[in-house]
Amino acid sequence: MRNVALVAGGITKFGVREASWKDLVQEAGKAVFEDCPNLDRKDIDSLIVGASQPERWVYQTHVAPLVAELLGIDVRRVIARTEVACASGQAAIRYAWLSIATGLSDVALVLGVEKMNTKFMDVSQTCMVNVGNREFDGPNGFTAPPFFAMVAQRHMHEYGTTNEQLAMIRVKNAKYGALNPYAQFQKEVTVEKVLGSRMISPPLTLLDCSAMTDGAAAVILASEERAKELTDTPVWVLGGAQSVLHAHTVNQMGELSEWLGLREAAKEFYSLTKLEPEKIDIAEVHDCFTISEIIEYEELGFCKKGEGGKFIEEGQSYIGGKVAVNPSGGLLSNGHPLGATGIRQAWEVLMQFRGDVPKGRYVDGAKVAIAHNLSGMAQLHHIMGYSIEKPKELKFGR
Amino acid sequence: MRNVALVAGGITKFGVREASWKDLVQEAGKAVFEDCPNLDRKDIDSLIVGASQPERWVYQTHVAPLVAELLGIDVRRVIARTEVACASGQAAIRYAWLSIATGLSDVALVLGVEKMNTKFMDVSQTCMVNVGNREFDGPNGFTAPPFFAMVAQRHMHEYGTTNEQLAMIRVKNAKYGALNPYAQFQKEVTVEKVLGSRMISPPLTLLDCSAMTDGAAAVILASEERAKELTDTPVWVLGGAQSVLHAHTVNQMGELSEWLGLREAAKEFYSLTKLEPEKIDIAEVHDCFTISEIIEYEELGFCKKGEGGKFIEEGQSYIGGKVAVNPSGGLLSNGHPLGATGIRQAWEVLMQFRGDVPKGRYVDGAKVAIAHNLSGMAQLHHIMGYSIEKPKELKFGR
Repeated sequence: MRNVALVAGGITKFGVREASWKDLVQEAGKAVFEDCPNLDRKDIDSLIVGASQPERWVYQTHVAPLVAELLGIDVRRVIARTEVACASGQAAIRYAWLSIATGLSDVALVLGVEKMNTKFMDVSQTCMVNVGNREFDGPNGFTAPPFFAMVAQRHMHEYGTTNEQLAMIRVKNAKYGALNPYAQFQKEVTVEKVLGSRMISPPLTLLDCSAMTDGAAAVILASEERAKELTDTPVWVLGGAQSVLHAHTVNQMGELSEWLGLREAAKEFYSLTKLEPEKIDIAEVHDCFTISEIIEYEELGFCKKGEGGKFIEEGQSYIGGKVAVNPSGGLLSNGHPLGATGIRQAWEVLMQFRGDVPKGRYVDGAKVAIAHNLSGMAQLHHIMGYSIEKPKELKFGR
Repeated sequence: MRNVALVAGGITKFGVREASWKDLVQEAGKAVFEDCPNLDRKDIDSLIVGASQPERWVYQTHVAPLVAELLGIDVRRVIARTEVACASGQAAIRYAWLSIATGLSDVALVLGVEKMNTKFMDVSQTCMVNVGNREFDGPNGFTAPPFFAMVAQRHMHEYGTTNEQLAMIRVKNAKYGALNPYAQFQKEVTVEKVLGSRMISPPLTLLDCSAMTDGAAAVILASEERAKELTDTPVWVLGGAQSVLHAHTVNQMGELSEWLGLREAAKEFYSLTKLEPEKIDIAEVHDCFTISEIIEYEELGFCKKGEGGKFIEEGQSYIGGKVAVNPSGGLLSNGHPLGATGIRQAWEVLMQFRGDVPKGRYVDGAKVAIAHNLSGMAQLHHIMGYSIEKPKELKFGR
């Protein structure tokens, strides 16, 4: 199998943008090409687009060849759009990675995009109900905020997690987001501010939630041979795992504060990559709500089950702690344009390893990073690993 | 790289179905599991779902984990939904193929599904405009029928192709479709009947067009090691190529009767697999309209450019001719549930190689097959090759 590297990245400003879906695609495309001056656009042989619901938000499907036209590229090997709701971008990276690993592709462009803010925000927000089992969970009101609120309530009940600990997640991510010029929210907050913000779904306040965001991000992946020609600072793909344990509908899930899908994905990921939680320097994780990041500490093995609240309280997930979690500011600061988020995380890892991030959110000396996404109601989890050091032996399976 | 095989297939009846989207998923799932009695469902490690616009037609996204729940399977390696409009199913097979080739996956379920007939058919049909560049081609009325009508007009102008030759494509495919119990249309037709059917967009009549269809199809792919345990009649994946030449919007396309994307995909495909057109025994191709199949003969190299009309007139694409094209009855007979079509083609190849199709449409002695899809306005083309003989040397790239 061939080694695969991230060689370039580009990103748009995330937020409530005047830009159209197509504008966002071109903005991220321009940024990624500028980041890769040695690349002749003709050498791109594959294109994977991560997008969640362009059919609903911008009345457009078949988006992969449209992106090819917008960016002026030809494809001769692999082209597709991947959709796994909130993890659509990571799925796109995975498809490109496998395509290059086999030799079918040499250089692949991966672009994630979402335009969620429209002139009809009631309609745009309603579309989020399609992410769950719409016929069953829709009538029960299970969009993300009430679902994650139930998760938080259960975690508080089981493990004594507090409102303050939830708020501390936002405080950390806002601190780093304030240093990220591409983030939707670039302002530091205090625990008091989070607790005092508008109640959305108890115990989650407005500042416990990520936002509806417009944005796009792109990365270029290449084989080892091509990577050498394209960059002096490649970031290597170590591997990945995904897991869903056939409970999609909320009433089938059992104990809401145990994320068995993530536990399983982490187990597979560590087994495939021969990594362990202690070796991870940077973790970009899916903090769609503050409670998510707390449970992710636990299920990813950064702390014991139930001790996620303590972990943030002790500052262990700050830069300089046990593991730097979301030095980008996470979804809470960056916002969450569904198809772009997974690729924005890969972009962050690339910039961190290159040292191209502002002081104050730079993780000095980092060698290994993971990116984690959940999709839907946290049934399905996705992990990929990256390293500044080229893997000696690539292991794809058992 | 590891060899990958199709080991099982299952399909629903295609047509205007009372069944819901979920019913269709479960019907195809049941069929594929029944076709693979040696498989323990726990051994499936990956799931790729091909689906085009469930967001529009059934108000549902994030469909991959929903399919996992509906079929009661856990996933620990690769899970995603792929979308490339009319070729969403083939893209799903490709993702599974690459996942298994690398070793990341051992056994993958690939399921394609579409529910296009709803209670609001005016809305359902309008959604087809999202497949093109909606903001540009939509206002010009470029849904598929007028676009392919322009293609037919141009081909007639350039090469003297006749209405009768177009009709002969339907006659052939209806002949085979009449022997396919899963097809939407199972009735033979005559040239006169095609010419005399209702005009849709000149020169295309109703019988020159494929239909809006509900249906699902599923296949199981496995590594060589696992394939041996699961079946005595594996069908091997030879490889695949896709091509789009950055002209997505109709006014950017140039000469409509030259399908340069397909010409390029075919060139890449033959180069990667070391095949040539003469070696292909069965070709399941994308006859969304009769004119499509004529141009596909030419661009796939079965005859010279411009001689597609003559090719059908001489009966060269019938079983017993140069190459058996669409012995399943094609999209014209089967109907075209977008996400299911590419997987229905793989199912057909599997059944043909096993000899599990009725006499009269069985291609005796066939060893090599291709499946071709186009997506959108024929900008983007997708080819995969299959063989009953295990490839000696797998070549993924140059």
